[in-house]
Amino acid sequence: MEAFSDGVIAIIITVMVLELKVPHEPTLEALRPVVPPLLTYALSFVYVGIYWNNHHHMLHAASRVNGAVLWANLHLLFWLSLVPFTTGWMGENHFAPLPTAIYGVVLLLSAVGYFILSQTLLAAEGPSSALAKAIGRDFKGRLSAVLYLVAIPLAFVRAWLALGIYILVGLMWLIPDRRIEGRLT
Amino acid sequence: MEAFSDGVIAIIITVMVLELKVPHEPTLEALRPVVPPLLTYALSFVYVGIYWNNHHHMLHAASRVNGAVLWANLHLLFWLSLVPFTTGWMGENHFAPLPTAIYGVVLLLSAVGYFILSQTLLAAEGPSSALAKAIGRDFKGRLSAVLYLVAIPLAFVRAWLALGIYILVGLMWLIPDRRIEGRLT
Amino acid sequence: MEAFSDGVIAIIITVMVLELKVPHEPTLEALRPVVPPLLTYALSFVYVGIYWNNHHHMLHAASRVNGAVLWANLHLLFWLSLVPFTTGWMGENHFAPLPTAIYGVVLLLSAVGYFILSQTLLAAEGPSSALAKAIGRDFKGRLSAVLYLVAIPLAFVRAWLALGIYILVGLMWLIPDRRIEGRLT
Amino acid sequence: MEAFSDGVIAIIITVMVLELKVPHEPTLEALRPVVPPLLTYALSFVYVGIYWNNHHHMLHAASRVNGAVLWANLHLLFWLSLVPFTTGWMGENHFAPLPTAIYGVVLLLSAVGYFILSQTLLAAEGPSSALAKAIGRDFKGRLSAVLYLVAIPLAFVRAWLALGIYILVGLMWLIPDRRIEGRLT
Repeated sequence: MEAFSDGVIAIIITVMVLELKVPHEPTLEALRPVVPPLLTYALSFVYVGIYWNNHHHMLHAASRVNGAVLWANLHLLFWLSLVPFTTGWMGENHFAPLPTAIYGVVLLLSAVGYFILSQTLLAAEGPSSALAKAIGRDFKGRLSAVLYLVAIPLAFVRAWLALGIYILVGLMWLIPDRRIEGRLT
Repeated sequence: MEAFSDGVIAIIITVMVLELKVPHEPTLEALRPVVPPLLTYALSFVYVGIYWNNHHHMLHAASRVNGAVLWANLHLLFWLSLVPFTTGWMGENHFAPLPTAIYGVVLLLSAVGYFILSQTLLAAEGPSSALAKAIGRDFKGRLSAVLYLVAIPLAFVRAWLALGIYILVGLMWLIPDRRIEGRLT
Repeated sequence: MEAFSDGVIAIIITVMVLELKVPHEPTLEALRPVVPPLLTYALSFVYVGIYWNNHHHMLHAASRVNGAVLWANLHLLFWLSLVPFTTGWMGENHFAPLPTAIYGVVLLLSAVGYFILSQTLLAAEGPSSALAKAIGRDFKGRLSAVLYLVAIPLAFVRAWLALGIYILVGLMWLIPDRRIEGRLT
Repeated sequence: MEAFSDGVIAIIITVMVLELKVPHEPTLEALRPVVPPLLTYALSFVYVGIYWNNHHHMLHAASRVNGAVLWANLHLLFWLSLVPFTTGWMGENHFAPLPTAIYGVVLLLSAVGYFILSQTLLAAEGPSSALAKAIGRDFKGRLSAVLYLVAIPLAFVRAWLALGIYILVGLMWLIPDRRIEGRLT
């Protein structure tokens, strides 16, 4: 399951670059409309990278898999697989309200998918397992969900504020996590 | 063979999202024509997820591979690789009769491919092998084939009925399978 | 190197399906122009499947890798990576002479790439190695190269004859190879 | 981390071929505009192949991974993932000044990303580690960066000179590296 998920996430992160339309003219003017998609791509790249990282460590700490876990995992991958689509839509429309809100919705549903997966894994492993300790109270995960819930309606008022919150959540996760420091590959 | 098949299936499941055309306008109206492709994508995602899951477990239980198995496996992957194409065609044409029927044909041929693979594996392993027990009478597989055979002509009468059968078959497989419960990763 | 090559070949085989343009109309007439690309896709799928199969077994029998082997491997992957392009061109133009000839050229160069890789592997392993025995006199490989050399000019006289030779070579390789029979995964 | 990176690089190298637009006519004239993209593709294929090769060996020599390494790795993959985009732009515009310069910028930033990754790995491993010896003074890496810095402004004077430097750097890395010779797979 780990190899398959790693494969799907690797493809999602790379396939996003195909949504960047190669400009037909060799000029700066032709490159300019590509800048917002490029920034969106960078943001989504960081997001999917974070998911890969956390997902990989969570599965690594797990020792038992059942049917519920398999489907919870596919459910998470489904929402992540929509990230290239929403990234392309938001980027191509230069952060218009609706695509910016939908982008947040897909991020929120990915976070929910991740939460469900961690809960099904916990149910299979038991509350005193190594996994339970690794997941802990998952403060960052809960805070992210709250911030997405704030950002989504905000996108219709000031799209840039919503975008700022998405970047903030990304940065929050970028800070190296002490839990994995020093761990062997 | 397992790693290669997992790779191909991971690519199939992710590449389907590329068939979702990013709308050019940032409006709900522009998003509306994307809804049928999106639903079709979700359905195909579940289907390919089911194949990955079952395929992975069947190969895991197998211990011997011969030339016939290798080609039976490629044959299955061929039909699965056409799922993104038929998904795109059915979704873009909002479940018109012909694409809906062809979608079922590809699902049926994938099921046939899976059946052939399981038989070549059984022939290599012997009837008293662990694999033979894991596959069993394969009631779900036979029922699915019958349901596809009903759905394909039905698509020309009422496309939505055919689609309903496809969803039903998907749900039937979604129910966690007791055979893999409790198995270690 | 094996995992990377398997990954690249898995992507090549799947990415080809993206060259199949989804028709915009839900009719048989709209599906008709897709038939030649579909047949070409099936042919290329078999070819790439054969390469994956043989490549996988050859690398498996090898125990030493040096710089020359790494580049010989990338060289082979380069020509294989052009198969989706030539497949698309030949299919979209319904087997016109030039694309049919170029398709054969890429198959020939892939075969040459495979031959170079086997020679660099042999040079690293020594003539009395298990690999040397596994490769043997490589009669099929030599015959394929000769047949491609016949088919390429023939494509300008009768494109269908060239195509017939490509199919013949594919079938020749499809026959289960006794060398890998009974081998464990 | 190694499997994920190998996966991403395998996808990058293969996805580039999708930027080659299949010509609609079966003639030599229709093939002619594809020649510059094809040459660019070959160059980028060699570049990404070099990165895969070196990256794979560097990670293989490493024994410890921390948060900084994970992000340094994603940072490198980000710049590499832009190679298909710049390859497509430069190829489609037949080596016009701006795309040729931008191509060099992405190569330079990939080289910087690789340097940062090697430094974070070294910081985790210590200066007397096997990795420190494997990386050494990294003369080739430094020289490549200098050559890119020369080529980028040169692209605006004579694009072909810049391209010549890119090819030169590629060839410099193609020479089999004595450090990996004789190493087992």
